[in-house]
Amino acid sequence: MRMDPQELLSLCKRRGFLWPAYDIYGGLAGTYDYGPLGTALKRNIEDYWRELYVVGEEFLELSCPIVAPEAVFKASGHADAFSDMYVECTKCGETFRADHLAEGLHENPASLDEKQLGKLLRDKGVKCPACGGELSEPRRFNLMFKTSVGAGKGKVAYLRPETAQGMFVNFSQVYRYGREKLPVGVVQIGRAFRNEISPRQGVIRLREFSQMEAELFLHPDNKTWPRYKNVKSEALDLVPNKGEPRRMKLEEAVHDKVIANEALAYFIWLTYRFAIDIGLSPAKIRFRQHLEKEMAHYAADCWDLEADIGYGWTELVGIADRGSYDVQAHISHSGADLTAFEKFEEPREIEERIVRPNFGALGPIFKGKAKRVAEALSKLPVGTVEGKGSAVVDIDGQSLEVPGSCFEISTRKEKVSGRKLVPHVIEPSYGVDRILYSVLDHAYTKKDDYIMLKLKGLVAPIKVAVFPLMAKDGLDLIAMDIYESVSKAGITAYYDDSGSIGRRYARMDEVGTPCCVTVDYDTKADGTVTVRERDSAEQVRIKKSVVPEAVRALTGGATLKAISSING
Amino acid sequence: MRMDPQELLSLCKRRGFLWPAYDIYGGLAGTYDYGPLGTALKRNIEDYWRELYVVGEEFLELSCPIVAPEAVFKASGHADAFSDMYVECTKCGETFRADHLAEGLHENPASLDEKQLGKLLRDKGVKCPACGGELSEPRRFNLMFKTSVGAGKGKVAYLRPETAQGMFVNFSQVYRYGREKLPVGVVQIGRAFRNEISPRQGVIRLREFSQMEAELFLHPDNKTWPRYKNVKSEALDLVPNKGEPRRMKLEEAVHDKVIANEALAYFIWLTYRFAIDIGLSPAKIRFRQHLEKEMAHYAADCWDLEADIGYGWTELVGIADRGSYDVQAHISHSGADLTAFEKFEEPREIEERIVRPNFGALGPIFKGKAKRVAEALSKLPVGTVEGKGSAVVDIDGQSLEVPGSCFEISTRKEKVSGRKLVPHVIEPSYGVDRILYSVLDHAYTKKDDYIMLKLKGLVAPIKVAVFPLMAKDGLDLIAMDIYESVSKAGITAYYDDSGSIGRRYARMDEVGTPCCVTVDYDTKADGTVTVRERDSAEQVRIKKSVVPEAVRALTGGATLKAISSING
Repeated sequence: MRMDPQELLSLCKRRGFLWPAYDIYGGLAGTYDYGPLGTALKRNIEDYWRELYVVGEEFLELSCPIVAPEAVFKASGHADAFSDMYVECTKCGETFRADHLAEGLHENPASLDEKQLGKLLRDKGVKCPACGGELSEPRRFNLMFKTSVGAGKGKVAYLRPETAQGMFVNFSQVYRYGREKLPVGVVQIGRAFRNEISPRQGVIRLREFSQMEAELFLHPDNKTWPRYKNVKSEALDLVPNKGEPRRMKLEEAVHDKVIANEALAYFIWLTYRFAIDIGLSPAKIRFRQHLEKEMAHYAADCWDLEADIGYGWTELVGIADRGSYDVQAHISHSGADLTAFEKFEEPREIEERIVRPNFGALGPIFKGKAKRVAEALSKLPVGTVEGKGSAVVDIDGQSLEVPGSCFEISTRKEKVSGRKLVPHVIEPSYGVDRILYSVLDHAYTKKDDYIMLKLKGLVAPIKVAVFPLMAKDGLDLIAMDIYESVSKAGITAYYDDSGSIGRRYARMDEVGTPCCVTVDYDTKADGTVTVRERDSAEQVRIKKSVVPEAVRALTGGATLKAISSING
Repeated sequence: MRMDPQELLSLCKRRGFLWPAYDIYGGLAGTYDYGPLGTALKRNIEDYWRELYVVGEEFLELSCPIVAPEAVFKASGHADAFSDMYVECTKCGETFRADHLAEGLHENPASLDEKQLGKLLRDKGVKCPACGGELSEPRRFNLMFKTSVGAGKGKVAYLRPETAQGMFVNFSQVYRYGREKLPVGVVQIGRAFRNEISPRQGVIRLREFSQMEAELFLHPDNKTWPRYKNVKSEALDLVPNKGEPRRMKLEEAVHDKVIANEALAYFIWLTYRFAIDIGLSPAKIRFRQHLEKEMAHYAADCWDLEADIGYGWTELVGIADRGSYDVQAHISHSGADLTAFEKFEEPREIEERIVRPNFGALGPIFKGKAKRVAEALSKLPVGTVEGKGSAVVDIDGQSLEVPGSCFEISTRKEKVSGRKLVPHVIEPSYGVDRILYSVLDHAYTKKDDYIMLKLKGLVAPIKVAVFPLMAKDGLDLIAMDIYESVSKAGITAYYDDSGSIGRRYARMDEVGTPCCVTVDYDTKADGTVTVRERDSAEQVRIKKSVVPEAVRALTGGATLKAISSING
């Protein structure tokens, strides 16, 4: 059974993970605040991702402005094509996604244009879902937030709808920084914005959200990755767009052309590892290949990591081979030279066919102009004269016909040390808010109204809680000392001395704290404390001096038994 | 001598700290990209700040949306009062800050209104600095970026000009999360936006920038902080707005009312500690109190941390006691109850004077209406009847005069357990980009064209570089192993095997890497490597197995001598 989103969002609100933003002013649909626990959880997820990509794979991290000039999105296509259709109620003024209102009335409402969709809604008698009023005709609405930079007329700018463009436009900078080698990878973690017409589904479809995006710039003919060899025999559950869903080894999938290339396969695998390590349930995630009609025309291949959550199967990550599309678009629009230089192992001899003037024949015919005619001839593309008996050149605005005897087509050989190429891009793009929500969804358990978040130690916002059995007799001072020693070791801890121990455990279980340490009267006698593990509710006693080490081990995945041996 | 900003920005661009953003499209004034080294340096600064505030002082971290509804800024005052004046050239269309053009023409151009400033510019014959054209009259320009949320008419919204408001509007959430106690502190780290008319000075005045802001909500009568006692005898160089600049102990400054209260003094001290630890030069920073005319009318006190950098003395941090202003503004505008509840130690008896009906006298006069007259009497404010011979009450729309014999003024005692109060706020607000720039400015050294950034280990983007003397004979493999062991220990490392060792040292000195490890032929024989310290250029040999530990110690401030003893 799927997790009820309202129940989860209610826990998130009550315990400080997520709050509807600007609530005292009636809120702003499609925006959420991250409370103290949500902020910590989000940071833990982002930090681990950074560890995988920046430390593990040596991607370079950039941080670009959110406000970007219109030209960037003219090139990327967002200015012209990043839109949805909406209808407005003529009575109450509410707006709705036009294709959402047509759900169930047509097999693919998203494929219709304004007129077709308008006719469909009219024919089916669709009214305003809020007040029953008449609806306007569908209109296109660009999903980028628009603003203006500078005083006076100002300059049109947009809030970025993705972090990716900041990395594409910086290809040359990154390429130089990486000493002009391919492949070179870049990442960016940050906010992005989409002015959704009617945001729904909590933090799944936000108007302001966070992305972790990676752009791997590759040689078009060499789409592999150094560590692919270490993982190629690992198997993943794949849902390809042809044939049945099946479990395949990566090397098999690449060999059978189910996954387009080795680099793409590697980052699908890395995404799987990330997902499992942060606590998504292996049984509730899958990699689904885009259907051919879903895929962008330029994409060589595209896979989504989907999670089964309260809202159904939901895309968390997209991993696409985007070919040269993005970089080429910015080359075309900006005129900048965003190419890599491939140096050949050995200089190569290139053959080029050219028009070669015949000076002996030119002189008598063109006299003083012969030299300029010869120059003009040698600049003509071969195709314009080949197979013709003569050529036409332009001298001082005058067209001169040059007989075939005055030139010949010949072949020139040249030594070149390399060539320019437009890099291809593999883009793993992660939606942070959706990932965070899915981690909570998969971690949530409830038994007889007792809620427990089984968050992994890696991501849990609080790693350990420290309790004195009673807030007196010096137990509180000992507990505070332990709390401080844990905090100083860089471990996020929580001190609590109010209410029964059972209630304190319950409070920590509800926010996913992996373990609790209790100071009791024995602590004063023998210096030991109780460590309780959340998931098993089992306890061991250890020396208070080893608490930081024990918590680090436990949240890193060690067993309670292993912890008790630290004691000795 | 001050550091030339152009020289520093040129290093920043060349080595991947900062790049003018969206450069291939002609850029967007007032925005910068953080390259790989800039992003890492910025994160190190932010992480250390978080360690001080969130771990050290137990502030709660929030993360709120950047796009916020207009109502928030109506309350904060930004919608109406956050503006500058500009003039536009009638010929070339360029815009300029009107008060900037009046610099030197008036002792305080910022104090003039549109008309006065317009007259001044006209009288002095000021023309367009770009083309010499005629200038328009000055106009007010709101510095918030405006946008619209939702399709159709949409809803006016702004990009936040500071992160603070998201914390103020969440006071109740935070107060509940902290178990309804004062003081409670909140922080937010994130982007903020100001649509500057003519941004100048590199990353000092950006249109899109990063802030680290803390809001400490306090009891109005108890402005202290637990750890103040640990630092009160520390002395700081202060520039108060009255009297001479002087070095004072914090307790002295508080006692003499130079600093308004203990909590403010503590956060001034914490800001000092932060500044020194990230590498600002003690001789080039100061705390300057706002002049009385600079201070907001509601502010009880305000101090800036200023740094002496290439642009002159520049504000990096503002630390203000803002009284109840912000929270009160949101209470007034939203109607929400953003108060704290002060529970008295003991319930207190409150005396209240009331109008008490005399039933014996009312009955005979008012008969069947006597009960309702009595109720109406008891609701009358005492002031309306006191000293008068009679009272007037309204029954069924009819005014009835009630003789003085029918009531008396008496005193009622009530037990109350506490009272509501609007918290006061102390706000330390840090500008990340300016801080980062100042760290670079203070770390920059140049001797005979040899550039070295003396960055502290705490913030250096690369902590250690690992070099094989030659990229052959297995030295490269050993070096790569060491590089990987350091990376796995969570230390940011850089591997480099190209060019002479001297050139590799120089490259690392230029980006502030505190130490370099070199693998040579002796390494193969005895397993030792050379560690070179950047600032002293001195070297020691240590076992390759202890490199991670040694680097951690060295970047944490240990001496090279201490490092060599790890060896034993």
